[in-house]
Amino acid sequence: MCENPYYTAEQHGDFDLFELEDFVLEQGATLRNASLAYKTFGQLNKEADNAILFPVMFSGTHAAMATYVGSELALNPEKYFIIIPNQLGGGLSTSPHNTQGEYGGASFPMLSIGDDVRAQHKLLNEHFGIRTLQLVTGWSMGAQQTYEWAVRYPNMVTRALPIAGTAKTTPHCGLYVDVFCEALNSDPAWKNGAYKNANDVSEGLCRMARVFAMMGASHELFNEKSWSNFGFSSTEDFLAGFWENWFLPMDPNNLLCMAKKWRSGDVSQHTGGNLESALHRIKAKMLVVAFKQDMFITEADCRREQQMIANSEFVSISSQWGHFSMLGMSRDDFKIINSCLERLLAAPV
Amino acid sequence: MCENPYYTAEQHGDFDLFELEDFVLEQGATLRNASLAYKTFGQLNKEADNAILFPVMFSGTHAAMATYVGSELALNPEKYFIIIPNQLGGGLSTSPHNTQGEYGGASFPMLSIGDDVRAQHKLLNEHFGIRTLQLVTGWSMGAQQTYEWAVRYPNMVTRALPIAGTAKTTPHCGLYVDVFCEALNSDPAWKNGAYKNANDVSEGLCRMARVFAMMGASHELFNEKSWSNFGFSSTEDFLAGFWENWFLPMDPNNLLCMAKKWRSGDVSQHTGGNLESALHRIKAKMLVVAFKQDMFITEADCRREQQMIANSEFVSISSQWGHFSMLGMSRDDFKIINSCLERLLAAPV
Repeated sequence: MCENPYYTAEQHGDFDLFELEDFVLEQGATLRNASLAYKTFGQLNKEADNAILFPVMFSGTHAAMATYVGSELALNPEKYFIIIPNQLGGGLSTSPHNTQGEYGGASFPMLSIGDDVRAQHKLLNEHFGIRTLQLVTGWSMGAQQTYEWAVRYPNMVTRALPIAGTAKTTPHCGLYVDVFCEALNSDPAWKNGAYKNANDVSEGLCRMARVFAMMGASHELFNEKSWSNFGFSSTEDFLAGFWENWFLPMDPNNLLCMAKKWRSGDVSQHTGGNLESALHRIKAKMLVVAFKQDMFITEADCRREQQMIANSEFVSISSQWGHFSMLGMSRDDFKIINSCLERLLAAPV
Repeated sequence: MCENPYYTAEQHGDFDLFELEDFVLEQGATLRNASLAYKTFGQLNKEADNAILFPVMFSGTHAAMATYVGSELALNPEKYFIIIPNQLGGGLSTSPHNTQGEYGGASFPMLSIGDDVRAQHKLLNEHFGIRTLQLVTGWSMGAQQTYEWAVRYPNMVTRALPIAGTAKTTPHCGLYVDVFCEALNSDPAWKNGAYKNANDVSEGLCRMARVFAMMGASHELFNEKSWSNFGFSSTEDFLAGFWENWFLPMDPNNLLCMAKKWRSGDVSQHTGGNLESALHRIKAKMLVVAFKQDMFITEADCRREQQMIANSEFVSISSQWGHFSMLGMSRDDFKIINSCLERLLAAPV
């Protein structure tokens, strides 16, 4: 394995590492000397009851979500202690690209959403002494973790706000994950994961980026050339400058590891496969947010699950950025998402 | 090039060949001794004014559309003379896989929708002496040809019924075509088109099939496991038995040739790039049909164009089969499409 300059504090800003030591995964493997990368904002109060957990999406790090943290925003670090944990496999935590030996690279063991949540629970519990969370929120795979938190540790989660993500990956979304993984790992340069340098696999990474562009943003964004509002000069320039630019510096094995985790996301594993029973375990007050034009985590997918949750409401946000509205490319999207967070945090529980 | 047993009368039923002789393409190349494969139903009357033209979709032949022809159906061969032309590049007409010499295989020249329409016009005019068409209808790329007919030969087309296809390929649909072409031609066995046997490229063909499955059928079809109504036993069985089974016997260069044609479809080429002007040339009475759950030729795409056409109406059909509703897997889809054809044919012009 080579060092990858993308997965550094230079690229993503400072972060901390929590030693998970020998961390046994749900599928049975042990990640030895594993660590969880995270970033905090604000101060934990004496009662340790002002914490917010904000897990991240596929291919994202704490840096991508930190824009939602600010003293004028719902996630106000002057009031709350905000923790953004990075995913296992995400590149800053223990991941295929930074693991040596039997579990390095493509031999990295299968992770589950539950593994991330258990690692985060360990951090909160052992390192910070946090027993209650004001809010768990996250987008996409961050929403998967949000659901897992609310179902696995119902007494700890006061409020939960999953954004464009599901408690159980749908069959269609599973097909989407397969399609973009195949776009990547069909590149002969991937070599079953034994490439020398991540950027040898640039063709596969570009193909994967275009699958994300096709399914992640809306038809309107392309057909009305709305990319021009964001500094792009043509469809090709938008594909290259936004989508390919996002994925090209990343490590293929890290991405494939996270994708497998995404595909297997399913809180009904706690209740013998019964999704409704699993969602009935939730005690949190919930606001379920969907993006109307999202083609891989659809409004209907989010709505279906929300209807099984007792103390919940549903909000659908219309934006040409579809699934990627969360990136806040449009200031309007950012504002409405922030207002959802504000509303749930203000709600009595 | 090897013979491909898929592109035969054994597979698709009898058809006729019209000699196009040396056919000059819009991009400048000449297809020497070219031929257009077609199938007719019924009899042309003495006035030669009872003809219906029904061009076919991407990867389809006359056989796939012949189910819409029958004495109990709108396309009644006891009343009408129905011609289903196969696409140039589609495998039965002159195509990459059956062309020798300088234009064989991957060297086959770039085709346009206009080339198909001009070849069909030559057949109708020179072979049958047809000067007027009661109806032109087609699905997907068949709809592209329908629009091209109505704009290019406005005096000849009395009625036109494009189904889930556009007059001008949208940027998002162009990206879709790129994504499925890349799924296919990224297979190293494609060898830039110089493969020995089409089925050497089966991995690429399967990848392409899964992109079609993801974008062509609806989320509901997968998420509600509605494939079980059509004899499939699991998502994987549906992907293999329906989608892969469709594409696997086909020739990759034929598919890529048709895809390039699809991507370049644009009737505004007749009016210096002005789509509205091009659509204003249409004299036909039109019924524009869209499939609500279609993810690559959206309802909005079809509606936008219909609104630019003077004598037109819009119908949107809701079906879990999305773009592929036209295959009539669900008898309800078949019936409603047939009733649209019936309605337009019955309308006075």
